[in-house]
Amino acid sequence: MSKKLPIKKSDYIYFQSISTRWNDNDIYGHINNVQYYSYFDTVVNFYLIEKAGLNIHSSSIVGYAVNSSCNYLSAISYPNMIYVGLRVNKIGNSSVTYGLAIFKKGSNKASAYGELTHVFVEKSKNKPTQIPTKIQNALKKLL
Amino acid sequence: MSKKLPIKKSDYIYFQSISTRWNDNDIYGHINNVQYYSYFDTVVNFYLIEKAGLNIHSSSIVGYAVNSSCNYLSAISYPNMIYVGLRVNKIGNSSVTYGLAIFKKGSNKASAYGELTHVFVEKSKNKPTQIPTKIQNALKKLL
Amino acid sequence: MSKKLPIKKSDYIYFQSISTRWNDNDIYGHINNVQYYSYFDTVVNFYLIEKAGLNIHSSSIVGYAVNSSCNYLSAISYPNMIYVGLRVNKIGNSSVTYGLAIFKKGSNKASAYGELTHVFVEKSKNKPTQIPTKIQNALKKLL
Amino acid sequence: MSKKLPIKKSDYIYFQSISTRWNDNDIYGHINNVQYYSYFDTVVNFYLIEKAGLNIHSSSIVGYAVNSSCNYLSAISYPNMIYVGLRVNKIGNSSVTYGLAIFKKGSNKASAYGELTHVFVEKSKNKPTQIPTKIQNALKKLL
Repeated sequence: MSKKLPIKKSDYIYFQSISTRWNDNDIYGHINNVQYYSYFDTVVNFYLIEKAGLNIHSSSIVGYAVNSSCNYLSAISYPNMIYVGLRVNKIGNSSVTYGLAIFKKGSNKASAYGELTHVFVEKSKNKPTQIPTKIQNALKKLL
Repeated sequence: MSKKLPIKKSDYIYFQSISTRWNDNDIYGHINNVQYYSYFDTVVNFYLIEKAGLNIHSSSIVGYAVNSSCNYLSAISYPNMIYVGLRVNKIGNSSVTYGLAIFKKGSNKASAYGELTHVFVEKSKNKPTQIPTKIQNALKKLL
Repeated sequence: MSKKLPIKKSDYIYFQSISTRWNDNDIYGHINNVQYYSYFDTVVNFYLIEKAGLNIHSSSIVGYAVNSSCNYLSAISYPNMIYVGLRVNKIGNSSVTYGLAIFKKGSNKASAYGELTHVFVEKSKNKPTQIPTKIQNALKKLL
Repeated sequence: MSKKLPIKKSDYIYFQSISTRWNDNDIYGHINNVQYYSYFDTVVNFYLIEKAGLNIHSSSIVGYAVNSSCNYLSAISYPNMIYVGLRVNKIGNSSVTYGLAIFKKGSNKASAYGELTHVFVEKSKNKPTQIPTKIQNALKKLL
Protein backbone atom coordinates (compact mmCIF):
# COMPACT_ATOMS: atom_id res chain seq x y z
CA MET A 1 0.00 0.00 0.00
CA SER A 2 1.49 3.36 -1.02
CA LYS A 3 1.90 6.14 1.50
CA LYS A 4 -1.05 8.03 0.05
CA LEU A 5 -4.17 6.07 0.92
CA PRO A 6 -6.23 4.96 -2.11
CA ILE A 7 -9.43 6.62 -0.91
CA LYS A 8 -10.49 8.94 -3.74
CA LYS A 9 -12.67 8.04 -6.71
CA SER A 10 -9.83 9.06 -9.03
CA ASP A 11 -7.71 6.27 -7.52
CA TYR A 12 -9.99 3.71 -9.23
CA ILE A 13 -10.72 2.79 -12.83
CA TYR A 14 -13.86 0.66 -12.92
CA PHE A 15 -17.02 1.40 -10.94
CA GLN A 16 -20.20 -0.45 -10.10
CA SER A 17 -23.15 0.50 -7.94
CA ILE A 18 -24.59 -2.02 -5.49
CA SER A 19 -27.86 -1.77 -3.60
CA THR A 20 -27.46 -2.34 0.13
CA ARG A 21 -29.95 -4.68 1.81
CA TRP A 22 -31.96 -4.60 4.99
CA ASN A 23 -29.94 -7.40 6.53
CA ASP A 24 -26.60 -5.75 5.72
CA ASN A 25 -27.26 -3.55 8.76
CA ASP A 26 -26.19 -5.00 12.06
CA ILE A 27 -27.60 -4.42 15.53
CA TYR A 28 -25.65 -1.14 15.78
CA GLY A 29 -27.46 0.20 12.71
CA HIS A 30 -24.48 0.12 10.35
CA ILE A 31 -23.52 -2.15 7.55
CA ASN A 32 -21.72 -5.11 9.07
CA ASN A 33 -17.98 -5.21 8.36
CA VAL A 34 -18.42 -8.64 6.75
CA GLN A 35 -20.66 -7.32 3.97
CA TYR A 36 -17.94 -5.10 2.53
CA TYR A 37 -16.19 -8.23 1.36
CA SER A 38 -19.34 -9.38 -0.41
CA TYR A 39 -19.33 -6.04 -2.25
CA PHE A 40 -15.67 -6.65 -3.12
CA ASP A 41 -16.12 -10.08 -4.65
CA THR A 42 -19.37 -9.13 -6.34
CA VAL A 43 -17.58 -6.37 -8.28
CA VAL A 44 -14.41 -8.34 -8.97
CA ASN A 45 -16.34 -11.30 -10.36
CA PHE A 46 -18.69 -9.01 -12.27
CA TYR A 47 -15.67 -7.53 -14.02
CA LEU A 48 -14.23 -11.00 -14.71
CA ILE A 49 -17.57 -12.17 -16.16
CA GLU A 50 -18.54 -9.09 -18.15
CA LYS A 51 -15.14 -7.79 -19.28
CA ALA A 52 -12.92 -10.87 -19.26
CA GLY A 53 -15.37 -13.55 -20.40
CA LEU A 54 -15.11 -15.76 -17.31
CA ASN A 55 -17.89 -18.39 -17.25
CA ILE A 56 -18.39 -19.09 -13.54
CA HIS A 57 -20.66 -22.06 -14.33
CA SER A 58 -18.34 -24.02 -16.60
CA SER A 59 -14.82 -22.56 -16.70
CA SER A 60 -12.05 -25.06 -15.85
CA ILE A 61 -9.84 -22.21 -14.61
CA VAL A 62 -11.22 -19.92 -11.90
CA GLY A 63 -10.00 -17.41 -9.34
CA TYR A 64 -9.77 -18.47 -5.69
CA ALA A 65 -9.31 -15.89 -2.95
CA VAL A 66 -6.04 -16.30 -1.04
CA ASN A 67 -6.00 -13.03 0.87
CA SER A 68 -8.28 -10.10 1.57
CA SER A 69 -8.27 -7.05 3.81
CA CYS A 70 -10.40 -4.01 4.49
CA ASN A 71 -10.00 -0.71 6.33
CA TYR A 72 -13.22 0.87 7.56
CA LEU A 73 -13.11 4.69 7.62
CA SER A 74 -16.72 5.73 8.17
CA ALA A 75 -20.00 3.91 8.65
CA ILE A 76 -22.60 3.31 5.94
CA SER A 77 -26.17 2.12 6.48
CA TYR A 78 -28.90 0.51 4.44
CA PRO A 79 -30.79 1.92 2.51
CA ASN A 80 -27.76 3.81 1.10
CA MET A 81 -26.77 2.98 -2.44
CA ILE A 82 -23.01 2.40 -2.64
CA TYR A 83 -20.43 2.67 -5.40
CA VAL A 84 -17.50 0.31 -5.55
CA GLY A 85 -14.25 1.34 -7.22
CA LEU A 86 -11.94 -1.32 -8.64
CA ARG A 87 -8.36 -1.31 -9.88
CA VAL A 88 -5.53 -3.82 -10.15
CA ASN A 89 -2.67 -3.20 -7.71
CA LYS A 90 -0.45 -6.03 -8.92
CA ILE A 91 -0.62 -8.78 -11.49
CA GLY A 92 1.65 -11.80 -11.67
CA ASN A 93 1.75 -15.06 -13.57
CA SER A 94 -1.05 -16.79 -11.71
CA SER A 95 -2.25 -14.20 -9.22
CA VAL A 96 -3.77 -10.74 -9.22
CA THR A 97 -4.29 -8.30 -6.36
CA TYR A 98 -7.29 -6.01 -6.74
CA GLY A 99 -7.62 -2.68 -4.96
CA LEU A 100 -11.18 -1.80 -3.98
CA ALA A 101 -12.98 1.05 -2.28
CA ILE A 102 -16.56 1.69 -1.17
CA PHE A 103 -18.10 5.14 -1.72
CA LYS A 104 -21.36 6.46 -0.38
CA LYS A 105 -23.56 8.06 -3.04
CA GLY A 106 -22.31 11.58 -3.77
CA SER A 107 -19.11 11.22 -1.78
CA ASN A 108 -15.63 11.39 -3.28
CA LYS A 109 -13.96 10.03 -0.13
CA ALA A 110 -14.08 6.28 0.44
CA SER A 111 -15.94 4.87 3.44
CA ALA A 112 -13.71 1.82 3.23
CA TYR A 113 -10.91 0.46 1.09
CA GLY A 114 -9.09 -2.81 0.83
CA GLU A 115 -7.56 -5.54 -1.26
CA LEU A 116 -8.45 -8.98 -2.58
CA THR A 117 -5.97 -11.41 -4.11
CA HIS A 118 -7.08 -14.12 -6.53
CA VAL A 119 -4.95 -17.06 -7.51
CA PHE A 120 -6.11 -18.68 -10.71
CA VAL A 121 -6.50 -22.41 -10.30
CA GLU A 122 -7.20 -25.34 -12.58
CA LYS A 123 -10.26 -26.69 -10.78
CA SER A 124 -9.76 -30.36 -11.62
CA LYS A 125 -6.18 -30.34 -10.27
CA ASN A 126 -6.70 -27.72 -7.56
CA LYS A 127 -3.35 -26.23 -8.61
CA PRO A 128 -2.34 -22.64 -9.48
CA THR A 129 -2.08 -22.00 -13.19
CA GLN A 130 -1.29 -19.11 -15.51
CA ILE A 131 -4.01 -16.48 -15.79
CA PRO A 132 -5.73 -17.06 -19.16
CA THR A 133 -4.66 -14.46 -21.76
CA LYS A 134 -8.12 -12.98 -22.22
CA ILE A 135 -8.46 -12.41 -18.48
CA GLN A 136 -4.90 -11.06 -18.22
CA ASN A 137 -5.63 -8.51 -20.92
CA ALA A 138 -8.82 -7.38 -19.23
CA LEU A 139 -7.09 -7.09 -15.86
CA LYS A 140 -4.18 -5.07 -17.24
CA LYS A 141 -6.66 -2.35 -18.21
CA LEU A 142 -7.18 -1.80 -14.50
CA LEU A 143 -3.50 -1.28 -13.67
CA MET B 1 -53.93 -16.15 -2.88
CA SER B 2 -56.37 -15.60 -5.78
CA LYS B 3 -56.80 -18.23 -8.47
CA LYS B 4 -54.83 -16.17 -10.95
CA LEU B 5 -51.21 -16.21 -9.82
CA PRO B 6 -49.73 -12.73 -9.22
CA ILE B 7 -46.81 -13.23 -11.58
CA LYS B 8 -46.99 -10.36 -14.06
CA LYS B 9 -45.40 -6.92 -13.68
CA SER B 10 -48.86 -5.37 -14.00
CA ASP B 11 -49.88 -7.18 -10.80
CA TYR B 12 -47.54 -4.88 -8.83
CA ILE B 13 -47.47 -1.17 -8.10
CA TYR B 14 -44.03 -0.26 -6.75
CA PHE B 15 -40.76 -1.50 -8.22
CA GLN B 16 -37.14 -1.50 -7.16
CA SER B 17 -34.07 -2.97 -8.77
CA ILE B 18 -31.57 -4.91 -6.69
CA SER B 19 -28.09 -6.01 -7.71
CA THR B 20 -27.48 -9.69 -7.08
CA ARG B 21 -24.21 -10.65 -5.40
CA TRP B 22 -21.57 -13.29 -5.96
CA ASN B 23 -22.49 -15.12 -2.77
CA ASP B 24 -26.22 -15.18 -3.60
CA ASN B 25 -25.37 -18.08 -5.92
CA ASP B 26 -25.27 -21.47 -4.27
CA ILE B 27 -23.28 -24.54 -5.19
CA TYR B 28 -25.81 -25.39 -7.93
CA GLY B 29 -25.12 -22.07 -9.64
CA HIS B 30 -28.47 -20.45 -8.84
CA ILE B 31 -29.51 -17.83 -6.39
CA ASN B 32 -30.17 -19.58 -3.11
CA ASN B 33 -33.86 -19.74 -2.13
CA VAL B 34 -33.04 -17.91 1.11
CA GLN B 35 -31.88 -14.76 -0.66
CA TYR B 36 -35.29 -14.08 -2.20
CA TYR B 37 -36.50 -13.19 1.28
CA SER B 38 -33.67 -10.69 1.67
CA TYR B 39 -34.86 -9.06 -1.56
CA PHE B 40 -38.38 -9.02 -0.12
CA ASP B 41 -37.54 -7.27 3.12
CA THR B 42 -35.07 -4.93 1.44
CA VAL B 43 -37.83 -3.59 -0.80
CA VAL B 44 -40.56 -3.55 1.86
CA ASN B 45 -38.37 -1.61 4.28
CA PHE B 46 -37.13 0.68 1.53
CA TYR B 47 -40.73 1.62 0.81
CA LEU B 48 -41.46 2.14 4.52
CA ILE B 49 -38.37 4.35 4.90
CA GLU B 50 -38.62 6.37 1.69
CA LYS B 51 -42.38 6.62 1.23
CA ALA B 52 -43.77 6.25 4.73
CA GLY B 53 -41.11 8.05 6.77
CA LEU B 54 -40.12 5.09 8.96
CA ASN B 55 -36.90 5.77 10.87
CA ILE B 56 -35.40 2.33 11.42
CA HIS B 57 -32.76 3.75 13.78
CA SER B 58 -35.04 5.52 16.24
CA SER B 59 -38.73 4.75 15.65
CA SER B 60 -40.56 3.42 18.72
CA ILE B 61 -43.01 1.56 16.46
CA VAL B 62 -41.61 -0.85 13.88
CA GLY B 63 -42.75 -3.75 11.71
CA TYR B 64 -41.87 -7.30 12.78
CA ALA B 65 -42.26 -10.21 10.35
CA VAL B 66 -44.80 -12.80 11.50
CA ASN B 67 -45.14 -14.80 8.32
CA SER B 68 -43.49 -15.12 4.94
CA SER B 69 -43.67 -17.43 1.96
CA CYS B 70 -42.21 -17.75 -1.50
CA ASN B 71 -42.91 -19.80 -4.63
CA TYR B 72 -39.95 -20.33 -6.93
CA LEU B 73 -40.89 -20.60 -10.62
CA SER B 74 -37.57 -20.36 -12.47
CA ALA B 75 -33.94 -20.00 -11.47
CA ILE B 76 -31.99 -16.73 -11.48
CA SER B 77 -28.23 -16.40 -11.17
CA TYR B 78 -25.75 -13.70 -10.21
CA PRO B 79 -24.73 -11.47 -12.03
CA ASN B 80 -28.35 -10.88 -13.14
CA MET B 81 -29.93 -7.61 -12.06
CA ILE B 82 -33.40 -8.25 -10.63
CA TYR B 83 -36.54 -6.18 -10.27
CA VAL B 84 -38.80 -6.58 -7.28
CA GLY B 85 -42.51 -5.75 -7.54
CA LEU B 86 -44.41 -4.77 -4.40
CA ARG B 87 -48.09 -4.38 -3.55
CA VAL B 88 -50.25 -4.64 -0.46
CA ASN B 89 -52.53 -7.68 -0.41
CA LYS B 90 -54.28 -6.89 2.88
CA ILE B 91 -54.08 -4.21 5.53
CA GLY B 92 -55.58 -4.41 9.00
CA ASN B 93 -55.36 -2.42 12.20
CA SER B 94 -51.89 -3.52 13.22
CA SER B 95 -50.76 -5.78 10.40
CA VAL B 96 -50.12 -5.61 6.68
CA THR B 97 -49.53 -8.38 4.15
CA TYR B 98 -47.31 -7.45 1.24
CA GLY B 99 -47.34 -9.26 -2.08
CA LEU B 100 -43.95 -9.45 -3.79
CA ALA B 101 -42.47 -10.83 -6.98
CA ILE B 102 -38.99 -11.13 -8.46
CA PHE B 103 -38.46 -10.40 -12.15
CA LYS B 104 -35.35 -11.02 -14.20
CA LYS B 105 -34.27 -8.00 -16.26
CA GLY B 106 -36.42 -7.75 -19.37
CA SER B 107 -38.90 -10.39 -18.30
CA ASN B 108 -42.58 -9.76 -17.64
CA LYS B 109 -43.12 -13.12 -15.96
CA ALA B 110 -42.02 -13.47 -12.35
CA SER B 111 -39.24 -15.89 -11.43
CA ALA B 112 -40.70 -16.05 -7.94
CA TYR B 113 -43.55 -14.54 -5.95
CA GLY B 114 -44.56 -14.56 -2.34
CA GLU B 115 -45.89 -12.74 0.69
CA LEU B 116 -44.54 -11.08 3.82
CA THR B 117 -46.70 -10.04 6.79
CA HIS B 118 -45.59 -7.31 9.18
CA VAL B 119 -47.19 -6.70 12.54
CA PHE B 120 -46.43 -3.23 13.86
CA VAL B 121 -45.14 -3.38 17.39
CA GLU B 122 -44.33 -0.85 20.10
CA LYS B 123 -40.70 -1.85 20.68
CA SER B 124 -40.53 -0.97 24.38
CA LYS B 125 -43.63 -3.08 25.18
CA ASN B 126 -43.09 -5.73 22.50
CA LYS B 127 -46.86 -5.56 21.82
CA PRO B 128 -48.82 -5.10 18.58
CA THR B 129 -50.08 -1.59 18.04
CA GLN B 130 -52.01 0.35 15.43
CA ILE B 131 -50.12 1.10 12.24
CA PRO B 132 -49.12 4.81 12.44
CA THR B 133 -51.34 6.97 10.18
CA LYS B 134 -48.52 8.15 7.93
CA ILE B 135 -47.46 4.55 7.27
CA GLN B 136 -51.07 3.42 6.78
CA ASN B 137 -51.58 6.10 4.16
CA ALA B 138 -48.43 5.13 2.30
CA LEU B 139 -49.35 1.43 2.41
CA LYS B 140 -52.90 2.04 1.12
CA LYS B 141 -51.40 3.41 -2.09
CA LEU B 142 -50.16 -0.12 -2.78
CA LEU B 143 -53.58 -1.79 -2.43
CA MET C 1 -50.94 -27.83 7.80
CA SER C 2 -53.02 -29.65 10.41
CA LYS C 3 -55.24 -27.74 12.81
CA LYS C 4 -52.84 -28.37 15.67
CA LEU C 5 -49.76 -26.26 15.01
CA PRO C 6 -46.52 -28.29 14.73
CA ILE C 7 -44.70 -26.33 17.40
CA LYS C 8 -43.54 -28.89 19.95
CA LYS C 9 -40.29 -30.84 19.90
CA SER C 10 -42.28 -34.08 19.84
CA ASP C 11 -43.73 -33.02 16.48
CA TYR C 12 -40.28 -33.55 14.90
CA ILE C 13 -38.07 -36.55 14.31
CA TYR C 14 -34.58 -35.32 13.43
CA PHE C 15 -32.77 -32.52 15.24
CA GLN C 16 -29.68 -30.46 14.62
CA SER C 17 -28.17 -27.58 16.55
CA ILE C 18 -26.95 -24.49 14.71
CA SER C 19 -24.86 -21.67 16.10
CA THR C 20 -26.34 -18.25 15.42
CA ARG C 21 -23.99 -15.57 14.11
CA TRP C 22 -23.38 -11.93 14.89
CA ASN C 23 -24.76 -10.81 11.55
CA ASP C 24 -27.95 -12.88 11.91
CA ASN C 25 -29.17 -10.10 14.21
CA ASP C 26 -30.79 -7.18 12.46
CA ILE C 27 -30.98 -3.54 13.52
CA TYR C 28 -33.87 -4.36 15.87
CA GLY C 29 -31.65 -6.79 17.77
CA HIS C 30 -33.40 -9.98 16.64
CA ILE C 31 -32.48 -12.64 14.18
CA ASN C 32 -33.60 -11.44 10.79
CA ASN C 33 -36.60 -13.34 9.36
CA VAL C 34 -34.52 -14.27 6.31
CA GLN C 35 -32.01 -16.28 8.34
CA TYR C 36 -34.60 -18.82 9.46
CA TYR C 37 -34.67 -20.10 5.91
CA SER C 38 -30.91 -20.56 5.96
CA TYR C 39 -31.36 -22.71 9.09
CA PHE C 40 -34.06 -24.66 7.22
CA ASP C 41 -32.00 -25.51 4.17
CA THR C 42 -28.87 -26.13 6.21
CA VAL C 43 -30.64 -28.89 8.17
CA VAL C 44 -32.51 -30.34 5.19
CA ASN C 45 -29.35 -30.63 3.12
CA PHE C 46 -27.38 -31.91 6.09
CA TYR C 47 -29.90 -34.74 6.40
CA LEU C 48 -29.75 -35.44 2.64
CA ILE C 49 -25.94 -35.53 2.74
CA GLU C 50 -25.41 -37.47 5.97
CA LYS C 51 -28.40 -39.82 5.98
CA ALA C 52 -29.31 -40.15 2.31
CA GLY C 53 -25.89 -40.05 0.66
CA LEU C 54 -26.48 -36.97 -1.49
CA ASN C 55 -23.21 -35.67 -2.96
CA ILE C 56 -23.86 -31.96 -3.46
CA HIS C 57 -20.61 -31.56 -5.42
CA SER C 58 -21.19 -34.19 -8.07
CA SER C 59 -24.70 -35.65 -7.97
CA SER C 60 -26.59 -35.47 -11.28
CA ILE C 61 -29.91 -35.40 -9.39
CA VAL C 62 -30.42 -32.71 -6.77
CA GLY C 63 -33.24 -31.02 -4.86
CA TYR C 64 -34.38 -27.55 -5.94
CA ALA C 65 -36.62 -25.46 -3.67
CA VAL C 66 -40.01 -24.70 -5.22
CA ASN C 67 -41.81 -23.35 -2.18
CA SER C 68 -41.03 -22.29 1.35
CA SER C 69 -42.85 -20.59 4.21
CA CYS C 70 -42.24 -19.62 7.80
CA ASN C 71 -44.34 -18.46 10.75
CA TYR C 72 -42.49 -16.42 13.37
CA LEU C 73 -43.87 -16.88 16.90
CA SER C 74 -41.26 -15.30 19.15
CA ALA C 75 -37.96 -13.52 18.61
CA ILE C 76 -34.52 -15.13 18.97
CA SER C 77 -31.21 -13.28 19.12
CA TYR C 78 -27.56 -14.08 18.57
CA PRO C 79 -25.69 -15.43 20.58
CA ASN C 80 -28.46 -18.00 21.28
CA MET C 81 -27.79 -21.54 20.14
CA ILE C 82 -30.81 -22.91 18.27
CA TYR C 83 -32.18 -26.38 17.60
CA VAL C 84 -33.91 -27.19 14.37
CA GLY C 85 -36.49 -29.95 14.19
CA LEU C 86 -37.13 -31.72 10.88
CA ARG C 87 -39.82 -34.08 9.62
CA VAL C 88 -41.36 -34.95 6.27
CA ASN C 89 -44.92 -33.71 5.83
CA LYS C 90 -45.49 -35.21 2.39
CA ILE C 91 -43.53 -37.23 -0.11
CA GLY C 92 -44.46 -37.78 -3.74
CA ASN C 93 -42.77 -39.17 -6.81
CA SER C 94 -40.42 -36.29 -7.45
CA SER C 95 -41.10 -33.89 -4.59
CA VAL C 96 -40.93 -33.81 -0.83
CA THR C 97 -42.30 -31.28 1.65
CA TYR C 98 -40.31 -30.92 4.85
CA GLY C 99 -41.75 -29.56 8.07
CA LEU C 100 -39.29 -27.56 10.16
CA ALA C 101 -39.25 -25.73 13.45
CA ILE C 102 -36.74 -23.57 15.33
CA PHE C 103 -36.34 -24.02 19.10
CA LYS C 104 -34.40 -21.85 21.49
CA LYS C 105 -32.07 -23.81 23.77
CA GLY C 106 -34.05 -25.33 26.60
CA SER C 107 -37.45 -24.49 25.13
CA ASN C 108 -40.02 -27.07 24.06
CA LYS C 109 -42.14 -24.52 22.19
CA ALA C 110 -41.00 -23.47 18.74
CA SER C 111 -39.96 -19.88 18.07
CA ALA C 112 -40.83 -20.43 14.42
CA TYR C 113 -42.08 -23.21 12.17
CA GLY C 114 -42.49 -23.64 8.47
CA GLU C 115 -42.18 -25.76 5.36
CA LEU C 116 -39.79 -26.26 2.48
CA THR C 117 -40.60 -28.21 -0.68
CA HIS C 118 -37.88 -29.76 -2.81
CA VAL C 119 -38.42 -31.04 -6.32
CA PHE C 120 -35.72 -33.43 -7.42
CA VAL C 121 -34.29 -32.45 -10.76
CA GLU C 122 -31.91 -33.98 -13.25
CA LYS C 123 -29.43 -31.10 -13.43
CA SER C 124 -28.35 -31.62 -17.04
CA LYS C 125 -31.95 -31.54 -18.29
CA ASN C 126 -33.32 -29.16 -15.66
CA LYS C 127 -36.39 -31.45 -15.44
CA PRO C 128 -38.15 -33.05 -12.45
CA THR C 129 -37.28 -36.68 -11.95
CA GLN C 130 -38.10 -39.47 -9.53
CA ILE C 131 -36.50 -39.15 -6.10
CA PRO C 132 -33.60 -41.67 -6.04
CA THR C 133 -34.46 -44.77 -3.97
CA LYS C 134 -31.77 -44.24 -1.36
CA ILE C 135 -32.98 -40.70 -0.71
CA GLN C 136 -36.64 -41.81 -0.71
CA ASN C 137 -35.89 -44.40 1.94
CA ALA C 138 -34.08 -41.91 4.12
CA LEU C 139 -36.87 -39.37 3.77
CA LYS C 140 -39.60 -41.89 4.63
CA LYS C 141 -38.00 -42.31 8.04
CA LEU C 142 -39.04 -38.73 8.75
CA LEU C 143 -42.72 -39.23 7.93
CA MET D 1 2.50 -10.53 11.88
CA SER D 2 5.48 -12.50 13.24
CA LYS D 3 7.64 -14.56 10.91
CA LYS D 4 6.11 -17.80 12.17
CA LEU D 5 2.54 -17.94 10.88
CA PRO D 6 -0.11 -18.30 13.62
CA ILE D 7 -1.67 -21.41 12.12
CA LYS D 8 -1.58 -24.03 14.87
CA LYS D 9 -4.22 -24.63 17.51
CA SER D 10 -1.62 -23.98 20.19
CA ASP D 11 -1.28 -20.41 18.85
CA TYR D 12 -4.78 -19.63 20.18
CA ILE D 13 -6.33 -19.43 23.62
CA TYR D 14 -10.11 -19.43 23.26
CA PHE D 15 -12.04 -21.74 20.92
CA GLN D 16 -15.58 -21.94 19.65
CA SER D 17 -17.21 -24.31 17.18
CA ILE D 18 -19.49 -22.94 14.48
CA SER D 19 -21.79 -24.90 12.22
CA THR D 20 -21.33 -24.07 8.55
CA ARG D 21 -24.46 -23.46 6.49
CA TRP D 22 -25.69 -24.53 3.09
CA ASN D 23 -25.42 -21.02 1.71
CA ASP D 24 -21.85 -20.55 2.97
CA ASN D 25 -20.79 -22.63 -0.04
CA ASP D 26 -20.35 -20.71 -3.24
CA ILE D 27 -20.74 -21.84 -6.83
CA TYR D 28 -17.27 -23.45 -6.72
CA GLY D 29 -18.38 -25.69 -3.85
CA HIS D 30 -16.27 -24.03 -1.15
CA ILE D 31 -17.09 -21.73 1.67
CA ASN D 32 -17.10 -18.23 0.27
CA ASN D 33 -14.16 -16.07 1.43
CA VAL D 34 -16.64 -13.54 2.84
CA GLN D 35 -18.09 -15.98 5.36
CA TYR D 36 -14.79 -16.36 7.21
CA TYR D 37 -15.25 -12.82 8.46
CA SER D 38 -18.69 -13.71 9.80
CA TYR D 39 -17.04 -16.54 11.76
CA PHE D 40 -14.49 -14.01 13.04
CA ASP D 41 -16.96 -11.49 14.37
CA THR D 42 -19.29 -14.17 15.69
CA VAL D 43 -16.54 -15.51 17.93
CA VAL D 44 -15.12 -12.13 18.93
CA ASN D 45 -18.53 -10.82 19.96
CA PHE D 46 -19.40 -14.10 21.67
CA TYR D 47 -16.31 -13.69 23.82
CA LEU D 48 -17.16 -10.04 24.56
CA ILE D 49 -20.73 -11.00 25.53
CA GLU D 50 -20.05 -14.17 27.51
CA LYS D 51 -16.68 -13.39 29.10
CA ALA D 52 -16.58 -9.60 29.23
CA GLY D 53 -20.21 -8.80 29.94
CA LEU D 54 -20.88 -6.70 26.83
CA ASN D 55 -24.60 -6.06 26.33
CA ILE D 56 -24.95 -5.63 22.58
CA HIS D 57 -28.58 -4.48 22.96
CA SER D 58 -28.05 -1.63 25.41
CA SER D 59 -24.36 -0.87 26.00
CA SER D 60 -23.40 2.77 25.40
CA ILE D 61 -19.83 1.71 24.55
CA VAL D 62 -19.36 -0.85 21.79
CA GLY D 63 -16.63 -2.16 19.49
CA TYR D 64 -16.60 -1.01 15.85
CA ALA D 65 -14.44 -2.81 13.28
CA VAL D 66 -11.75 -0.56 11.77
CA ASN D 67 -9.65 -3.17 10.03
CA SER D 68 -9.80 -6.84 9.15
CA SER D 69 -7.81 -9.28 7.05
CA CYS D 70 -7.76 -12.96 6.23
CA ASN D 71 -5.36 -15.40 4.59
CA TYR D 72 -6.95 -18.46 3.03
CA LEU D 73 -4.73 -21.57 3.12
CA SER D 74 -7.05 -24.43 2.17
CA ALA D 75 -10.69 -24.73 1.22
CA ILE D 76 -13.49 -25.79 3.58
CA SER D 77 -17.01 -26.79 2.56
CA TYR D 78 -20.39 -27.06 4.19
CA PRO D 79 -21.37 -29.37 5.92
CA ASN D 80 -18.01 -29.28 7.78
CA MET D 81 -18.11 -28.16 11.37
CA ILE D 82 -15.38 -25.59 12.01
CA TYR D 83 -13.45 -24.47 15.06
CA VAL D 84 -12.39 -20.88 15.49
CA GLY D 85 -9.35 -19.99 17.57
CA LEU D 86 -9.12 -16.54 19.16
CA ARG D 87 -6.33 -14.59 20.84
CA VAL D 88 -5.46 -10.93 21.35
CA ASN D 89 -2.48 -9.75 19.31
CA LYS D 90 -2.39 -6.19 20.67
CA ILE D 91 -4.39 -4.12 23.09
CA GLY D 92 -4.24 -0.35 23.43
CA ASN D 93 -6.23 2.33 25.21
CA SER D 94 -9.25 2.26 22.96
CA SER D 95 -8.49 -0.48 20.44
CA VAL D 96 -7.79 -4.17 20.37
CA THR D 97 -6.49 -6.40 17.59
CA TYR D 98 -7.71 -9.98 17.68
CA GLY D 99 -5.90 -12.84 16.01
CA LEU D 100 -8.19 -15.54 14.62
CA ALA D 101 -7.89 -18.85 12.81
CA ILE D 102 -10.29 -21.35 11.30
CA PHE D 103 -9.71 -25.08 11.80
CA LYS D 104 -11.48 -27.95 10.12
CA LYS D 105 -12.71 -30.61 12.56
CA GLY D 106 -9.81 -32.84 13.56
CA SER D 107 -7.13 -30.67 11.97
CA ASN D 108 -4.37 -28.93 13.87
CA LYS D 109 -3.38 -26.74 10.91
CA ALA D 110 -5.51 -23.70 10.19
CA SER D 111 -7.47 -23.45 6.94
CA ALA D 112 -7.37 -19.68 7.30
CA TYR D 113 -6.08 -17.07 9.72
CA GLY D 114 -6.46 -13.35 10.08
CA GLU D 115 -7.00 -10.30 12.22
CA LEU D 116 -9.82 -8.02 13.29
CA THR D 117 -9.32 -4.68 15.02
CA HIS D 118 -12.06 -3.16 17.17
CA VAL D 119 -12.06 0.45 18.32
CA PHE D 120 -14.33 1.02 21.28
CA VAL D 121 -16.69 3.90 20.67
CA GLU D 122 -19.18 5.85 22.73
CA LYS D 123 -22.22 5.31 20.54
CA SER D 124 -23.99 8.59 21.28
CA LYS D 125 -20.87 10.65 20.39
CA ASN D 126 -19.48 8.29 17.72
CA LYS D 127 -16.03 8.88 19.24
CA PRO D 128 -13.31 6.45 20.37
CA THR D 129 -13.19 5.93 24.10
CA GLN D 130 -11.21 3.90 26.61
CA ILE D 131 -11.99 0.17 26.64
CA PRO D 132 -14.15 -0.42 29.75
CA THR D 133 -12.14 -2.08 32.56
CA LYS D 134 -14.20 -5.26 32.66
CA ILE D 135 -13.71 -5.77 28.93
CA GLN D 136 -9.99 -4.90 29.16
CA ASN D 137 -9.50 -7.52 31.85
CA ALA D 138 -11.26 -10.18 29.82
CA LEU D 139 -9.28 -9.31 26.70
CA LYS D 140 -5.93 -9.41 28.51
CA LYS D 141 -6.56 -13.07 29.27
CA LEU D 142 -6.22 -13.70 25.55
CA LEU D 143 -2.81 -12.03 25.20
